[in-house]
Amino acid sequence: MQDALLALTRYWTERGAMVVQPFNTEVGAGTLNPATVLRVLGPEPWRVAYVEPSVRPDDARYGENPNRLQTHTQFQVVLKPDPGNPQELYLGSLEALGIDIHAHDVRFVEDNWASPALGAWGLGWEVWLDGLEITQFTYFQQAGGQTLDPVSVEITYGVERIMMALQGVAHFKDIAYAPGISYGEAFGQAEYEMSRFYLDDADVETQRRLFEDYAAEARRLLDARLPVPAHVHVLKCSHTFNVLDARGAVSTTERAKAFARMRGLAREVAGLWSQRRAELGHPLGTADLPAALPAPTEFPVVEGTRTLLFEIGTEELPPHEVTRTAAAVRTALAAKLDGTRLGHGEVRTHATPRRIVAIVDSVEPVEPDAERTVRGPRASAAFDADGNPTKAAAGFARGQGVDASALQRIDVDGVEYVGITRTDLGRGALEVLSGLLGELVAELRADKNMRWSDPKLSFTRPVRWLVALLGDTQVPVVASALAAGRETRVHRTAATPVLPVESAEGYLDFLASHGVVADQEVRRARIVAAAAELAESVGGHVEGEDALIDEITNLVEEPNAVLGSFEPRYLDLPAEILTTVMRKHQRYLPVRDAQGTLLPHFVAVANGACDHDTVRAGNEAVLRARYEDASFFWRADLQTPPERMKEGIAKLAFEERLGSVAQRADRIAAVALDLATEVSTVDSSTVDIEVLRRAAALAKFDLGSQMVIELTSLAGTMAREYARRAGEPEAVAQALYDMELPRSGGGAVPATAPGALLALADRFDLLAGLFAVGAKPTGSSDPFGLRRAGAGVVAILRAHPSLRAITVPRGLAAAAERVRAQGIEVSDAVLAEVAEFVLRRYEQQLLDAGHPHEQVSAVLVLGAAPVVADETLAELSTRVGDPDFAALVAALQRVRRIVPAGTEPGYDPAVLTEPAEVSLHQVFDKARAAAGTGLAEFTSAAAVLTGPVNVFFDDILVMAPDPALRAARLGLLAAIRDWAAPVLDWQALGSSLDG
Amino acid sequence: MQDALLALTRYWTERGAMVVQPFNTEVGAGTLNPATVLRVLGPEPWRVAYVEPSVRPDDARYGENPNRLQTHTQFQVVLKPDPGNPQELYLGSLEALGIDIHAHDVRFVEDNWASPALGAWGLGWEVWLDGLEITQFTYFQQAGGQTLDPVSVEITYGVERIMMALQGVAHFKDIAYAPGISYGEAFGQAEYEMSRFYLDDADVETQRRLFEDYAAEARRLLDARLPVPAHVHVLKCSHTFNVLDARGAVSTTERAKAFARMRGLAREVAGLWSQRRAELGHPLGTADLPAALPAPTEFPVVEGTRTLLFEIGTEELPPHEVTRTAAAVRTALAAKLDGTRLGHGEVRTHATPRRIVAIVDSVEPVEPDAERTVRGPRASAAFDADGNPTKAAAGFARGQGVDASALQRIDVDGVEYVGITRTDLGRGALEVLSGLLGELVAELRADKNMRWSDPKLSFTRPVRWLVALLGDTQVPVVASALAAGRETRVHRTAATPVLPVESAEGYLDFLASHGVVADQEVRRARIVAAAAELAESVGGHVEGEDALIDEITNLVEEPNAVLGSFEPRYLDLPAEILTTVMRKHQRYLPVRDAQGTLLPHFVAVANGACDHDTVRAGNEAVLRARYEDASFFWRADLQTPPERMKEGIAKLAFEERLGSVAQRADRIAAVALDLATEVSTVDSSTVDIEVLRRAAALAKFDLGSQMVIELTSLAGTMAREYARRAGEPEAVAQALYDMELPRSGGGAVPATAPGALLALADRFDLLAGLFAVGAKPTGSSDPFGLRRAGAGVVAILRAHPSLRAITVPRGLAAAAERVRAQGIEVSDAVLAEVAEFVLRRYEQQLLDAGHPHEQVSAVLVLGAAPVVADETLAELSTRVGDPDFAALVAALQRVRRIVPAGTEPGYDPAVLTEPAEVSLHQVFDKARAAAGTGLAEFTSAAAVLTGPVNVFFDDILVMAPDPALRAARLGLLAAIRDWAAPVLDWQALGSSLDG
Repeated sequence: MQDALLALTRYWTERGAMVVQPFNTEVGAGTLNPATVLRVLGPEPWRVAYVEPSVRPDDARYGENPNRLQTHTQFQVVLKPDPGNPQELYLGSLEALGIDIHAHDVRFVEDNWASPALGAWGLGWEVWLDGLEITQFTYFQQAGGQTLDPVSVEITYGVERIMMALQGVAHFKDIAYAPGISYGEAFGQAEYEMSRFYLDDADVETQRRLFEDYAAEARRLLDARLPVPAHVHVLKCSHTFNVLDARGAVSTTERAKAFARMRGLAREVAGLWSQRRAELGHPLGTADLPAALPAPTEFPVVEGTRTLLFEIGTEELPPHEVTRTAAAVRTALAAKLDGTRLGHGEVRTHATPRRIVAIVDSVEPVEPDAERTVRGPRASAAFDADGNPTKAAAGFARGQGVDASALQRIDVDGVEYVGITRTDLGRGALEVLSGLLGELVAELRADKNMRWSDPKLSFTRPVRWLVALLGDTQVPVVASALAAGRETRVHRTAATPVLPVESAEGYLDFLASHGVVADQEVRRARIVAAAAELAESVGGHVEGEDALIDEITNLVEEPNAVLGSFEPRYLDLPAEILTTVMRKHQRYLPVRDAQGTLLPHFVAVANGACDHDTVRAGNEAVLRARYEDASFFWRADLQTPPERMKEGIAKLAFEERLGSVAQRADRIAAVALDLATEVSTVDSSTVDIEVLRRAAALAKFDLGSQMVIELTSLAGTMAREYARRAGEPEAVAQALYDMELPRSGGGAVPATAPGALLALADRFDLLAGLFAVGAKPTGSSDPFGLRRAGAGVVAILRAHPSLRAITVPRGLAAAAERVRAQGIEVSDAVLAEVAEFVLRRYEQQLLDAGHPHEQVSAVLVLGAAPVVADETLAELSTRVGDPDFAALVAALQRVRRIVPAGTEPGYDPAVLTEPAEVSLHQVFDKARAAAGTGLAEFTSAAAVLTGPVNVFFDDILVMAPDPALRAARLGLLAAIRDWAAPVLDWQALGSSLDG
Repeated sequence: MQDALLALTRYWTERGAMVVQPFNTEVGAGTLNPATVLRVLGPEPWRVAYVEPSVRPDDARYGENPNRLQTHTQFQVVLKPDPGNPQELYLGSLEALGIDIHAHDVRFVEDNWASPALGAWGLGWEVWLDGLEITQFTYFQQAGGQTLDPVSVEITYGVERIMMALQGVAHFKDIAYAPGISYGEAFGQAEYEMSRFYLDDADVETQRRLFEDYAAEARRLLDARLPVPAHVHVLKCSHTFNVLDARGAVSTTERAKAFARMRGLAREVAGLWSQRRAELGHPLGTADLPAALPAPTEFPVVEGTRTLLFEIGTEELPPHEVTRTAAAVRTALAAKLDGTRLGHGEVRTHATPRRIVAIVDSVEPVEPDAERTVRGPRASAAFDADGNPTKAAAGFARGQGVDASALQRIDVDGVEYVGITRTDLGRGALEVLSGLLGELVAELRADKNMRWSDPKLSFTRPVRWLVALLGDTQVPVVASALAAGRETRVHRTAATPVLPVESAEGYLDFLASHGVVADQEVRRARIVAAAAELAESVGGHVEGEDALIDEITNLVEEPNAVLGSFEPRYLDLPAEILTTVMRKHQRYLPVRDAQGTLLPHFVAVANGACDHDTVRAGNEAVLRARYEDASFFWRADLQTPPERMKEGIAKLAFEERLGSVAQRADRIAAVALDLATEVSTVDSSTVDIEVLRRAAALAKFDLGSQMVIELTSLAGTMAREYARRAGEPEAVAQALYDMELPRSGGGAVPATAPGALLALADRFDLLAGLFAVGAKPTGSSDPFGLRRAGAGVVAILRAHPSLRAITVPRGLAAAAERVRAQGIEVSDAVLAEVAEFVLRRYEQQLLDAGHPHEQVSAVLVLGAAPVVADETLAELSTRVGDPDFAALVAALQRVRRIVPAGTEPGYDPAVLTEPAEVSLHQVFDKARAAAGTGLAEFTSAAAVLTGPVNVFFDDILVMAPDPALRAARLGLLAAIRDWAAPVLDWQALGSSLDG
């Protein structure tokens, strides 16, 4: 391994990097070394390479986990500015390490990086070597809250992983570190002992004190304008925080506070460093960046109708941006062409991770000329009595550069003006295309955009080359510092990675002949076919993986599917674990048999030609390591009965004031049982109370399992598995699974009532508790996922009509009671705020589902019970365009408008004497007696009111001079208003139902 | 510079060293990295190389000092076990750095290393490159209080220094660090800011708290049996201590306490680490060491009388050991030869830093045979009445392996025994020599001894080879794992560094022909001659440097004197500064003109052939850098008047309870003036009180100068210089100089009375104050130099008879008064203890001067005033062998013996009636009236008592039955006793004066 570090050092120093030493206080990553985090600031150039033993107390495993270490070795490279070819330089470094990049599948897979604690972020990739993440590659965009200009490229090698792969060993301890000495021999004892310190033996009170002392020292040093020692102390703060965290001594609130404090200090350090460098006159000078090129001025003439090819070459795009950008470019290009007179055929786009290709058929060689009328003054004002041009006409003519005699009369909407007709000469196709293609590049945007070495461009990843050909003629296109040519790029490992394109017409075939399948559909079909074929070879098939296949399609230019296998013994693990690892971590397609059961195989899709055996072996090793981890946790967990596992969660801090996860689980259990009584009073068969009671007792127990600590997304899933295996009734297991649902907006909701009750209780507790302690979400921050919790409440209630008795306020009240029992004040105002917060989530769901906002507003009054509101909304939607209903609505709105707020609904019918008012009274009396609770019943009962209400308003003076009479009339109307009010917010409907 | 680090890394990895990273918490030296300080413990082999940025807060200079950095770069190599040729490997590494070791003067100059805080020490060298210290090279003997077995070789390169020398730059900032970037550009800002932190801005209270927290955490981790994290926290402790120290916030007491604490922790860490490694079964195995060779059993026969050559080849010996060992080997070899019958001529030894050579002339080829008589029983018991052998005789004969008939009669001191005569056959010379030469090596010892890879040998530096030749025959000698041969070694850079010696007779010439001058006298003469010649070439000469020339003689094998120069402007500095730097730091001979004034030249003596220009330039650069430092301090100091400089010492902590150095200076001033009144009452002309007053006011002011802070040995010297230049009277300047004298045992004492008074006050204050606060020295530790202070008090008082009024108790009382004024209790018991402590120093001085211990004991009773005791002792020594004086002494001792302790001296003469008692009474009365205070006067008066005392004892029964008579007789004797007592302790003389 030491040779590898030397090889990397040599490689990068030969490319102009300076070498510095690892930092001499503990850092969590090479990024934190001032040689990165401070040097990326400001305009000075900087190229550096160094080893950084990176300390992550949380990753301490006593040296037992084959892949995880409390101190792992990073090799860090910073290139500032971006040299324009950092990926190619990086690949060269892999070759320097002895990696045959032609045999292996090396890929750049989207992975963005952000460190809120550093006020830093960047876009980039994790680099995969046969599926193994070996490097983090980032274009650093911000640090210490400052936008970086120029941008730096940061390359971080995970050295142990690379070594394990190269040496083919399965445990870091087996890495040959130096001749005759293994990694374990060299560092095993330290790994064990430092793990002990971080996980078990560090003194919490001491570490807390250290944190405060370091933070205070950093503060003082900032005040003394010394960014370097201030930074050192921020690092010490950060490490101490990590130690506390590994010791399990940081509550979520404390975490948020500590992060805010560290972030604030880090930002100040960065700001001060930048100032100090400026004051020192930027000792290293200012980085040179390529300049924007001048716009082309010469445009050759082309002949005949040809195809336009415009290829925008990029570094690996995030998969979702591949599809999105292809569509956006098509739209934009079509629109831009439409803005010209250039004749052309269909506009198509194709996309791969490395290129967006626009192809336009049948582009004419020139624009036709066009006539254009320029309007001057009205004819009536253009000529004097003698028919001579007036001053106005003469001025217009002069302005247009023509003689007044050339003015013509033109008719515009029946009014006569003077004017002239001009001919715009058609431009050559190249001139037209040059401008708009340049704009197209400059206007590229993605969800998240970045800068690189280009002075103006901004996109999701760097744009590195452009090819613009009209037929076989180069279109002179310039976008900032990029000039289009005919040189495209194929696989980086190809014999000739840069190749000239002969003509637009042959482009797709030409690319294909070099292995690049530009057409997404073709590529996808190939993947599907290859995967099917490979799966079939082992008697299986791939099913239900459309989203993953879409993603894979956007991860490769030349799909090269490889069938891998894993040891069948791993099939003993629950399928969810296996597929979660395959899909989320590795983008492997699971292979199933005819019954849908997993087979011990997977399909990985490599990019480009490579050695199948090598790539297979690599991917299998990665999966084996991950499955080995999972098996280890699985076996360990199965040794532990659920009850005992649950004891473990008492050690997990949830939130400083709200206590441990165990306390939260207890509250949830109590609230769920509380809410069950509510439901049972309505319908005692709804909830199996024994199931609920048992599930409540076990609630959240799997958070104490090693599996869930490692793979948090399996919470609930593991609860069900472990409960089943511990002999719990299936209904209990299911309830425990259900209680974690929904996992996301639109995700599956609990299938069972006990599960739904637990899930609700979970979310009510979260909302009531955190709002009570002042941890409600802000615009940019929602660390506890309260928005998701609120949406979850709504989704569950909407999916479980049988639980309609549980309103949001009722649920929150039950939760508040338990929170209060812990001595925490939960005011009614807070609960009202939470209810409103939940209501907003409901509103959003309805709007997102496409319901008209008037209808949504109308039913939101019922939102405390979303099922009821849903039903009302459904009913309402059947009434759209129903004139009777619209009339009823109008009538009810009229009633509401006329009655002043605060008017009491009572009235003395005896006072009413006019026929219209008597009639309304009588019809209303009858309707009121007939109506039920829902909108349908109300409507059928209330429909008879429309006429009488309208007649009443036509015939009766509500504001009669006689006070008693006025009161009775108003009282009648108020009674109607109040009768209709609970059904929905009639006013909110406006006239939206008129159809 | 980064290339140099890579080159070193490559060089050492190619030689089997593992590479580790710098440690990730601040360390003061590469030694502290666990890869050294823990790995040197125990039996496991270990070879490691690494870069270590070493943080020394105390060396922070804001980046302004060209040679000093708060973080400098060490390159550290550990070889465990000692590979047998570490110096040769090291020289190879210099070549790997591009250093032409043939052109440069590379030398290994004694420099031992000890870190009390680590419980660690080792012996070794600093390596000089043309006079520049570039590497520390140590055989690590102990760490964490544990004796190391096997021993490790530790090589620590000072990378910045090497780079400055190689690149020929005068400031570290100008080092080319990487292509296009200088050291200053890369690290200048950090150097400045971290200096600010360490020197000015670190918060003292915070750092104190951190120290406590780290120490406590280390403690806990030791209890948890985790040596690695415990070590990390000891390092953090240590760094924090260094920060506090650089902030000037550590008093001497605090320092001692902190060191004790850190030492204790470090020892425990080491112990625990060793235990843990043993428990783990020593995962790296056990280092292989050479085995001891079997003793030779075959000894060829030689003919004729030949010269014996025995060369003990070593690594560079400390200079004082070269001479000492040569003498010791001569003595030991002569004694061993005398223990044999082997005929031989003169035994001579020669020595260089790398070899001890014994040459014995005219060694006979064999020992002569020898006859030996073995005595049996007395003849009377050997034969029975019949003349037959008794059982005893028979048994004796059997035991001797002869027949009883072979017994002879032998006469021993007139008694007749039986016995036999045996012949011991003479052994061959080779057999005789083999044994004793082997022993000679095994018994080599020095003041400080070390181990290396040899399993048994121990010496001041490793013994690496042996040559043993008798004439041209190899003597088979084995010492542990070393076998003697005929291969000697010449300069390491010679074309053939290992050469066979033909014969003992030609050895010295053979060596000389290869440049090695083995004879010390010859070598010394060459140095003197060469230095004289070089000095003469610039019109100067070298004078009064005998001790330095002796040292240089022992630093080189082939003296190669080089004349260097420095810029004459440095001559503006006081000569003491220039010569201190030349002699103590560089071993350069100063060159003076006929008037003894320094010339801007020096003579450096290189070892072996080298390029004179290269070596001259290197040495000149080193001296320039040192003088540049000194000039900087000098100029800065001259800007500051003495009064203001003195203000600075208020910031220097002296001791926690005794306060700052300024408080101490104030106390000294007051005590000196106090003591002056004592002297003035005796003789008002002794002390110029105005001079004393002014000097007292300025006392210690130069401790506030930059020069003295850098070169502490110039305290006093700089006071005189700065005082003169500030226009102070010469007498004041001299007093300030004097007050720091004597600097060492036997060193010069103050020349003037005011200086002597200040020097006494200084030492009385030190003694009284530190004893009072409980900081008296222990057997192994005397951090404040109290023994030296006590000896100084005595030396000053002895040298200044005019100050005889100042007794030690009087001086201590005066000092105590000032200490008490600061609220510190100083008990009389403590003062008595200090007085006794000082008296012991005086006793030691007298014994060291060779005075007989009886006489010393006799005058010690007068030691409160050493001058008086000295005078008595001088008188006493004139009396040795004087029978009258001896008789007087015996008489007085007899008186003292007979009188019980506590007997009152009064008596009634009227009671005395016997002639002998009356006579004694009368003679005593007269003598008492005549006597003065000194011994001479007493003796001349008392001499008449001898006879009467003896008669008294012959004639008189002292213990008369009549109580009154008995009381009078005892009273008379007691009066004589008490009269004689103050003169000296007569009893202590014993019979030592009998001659």
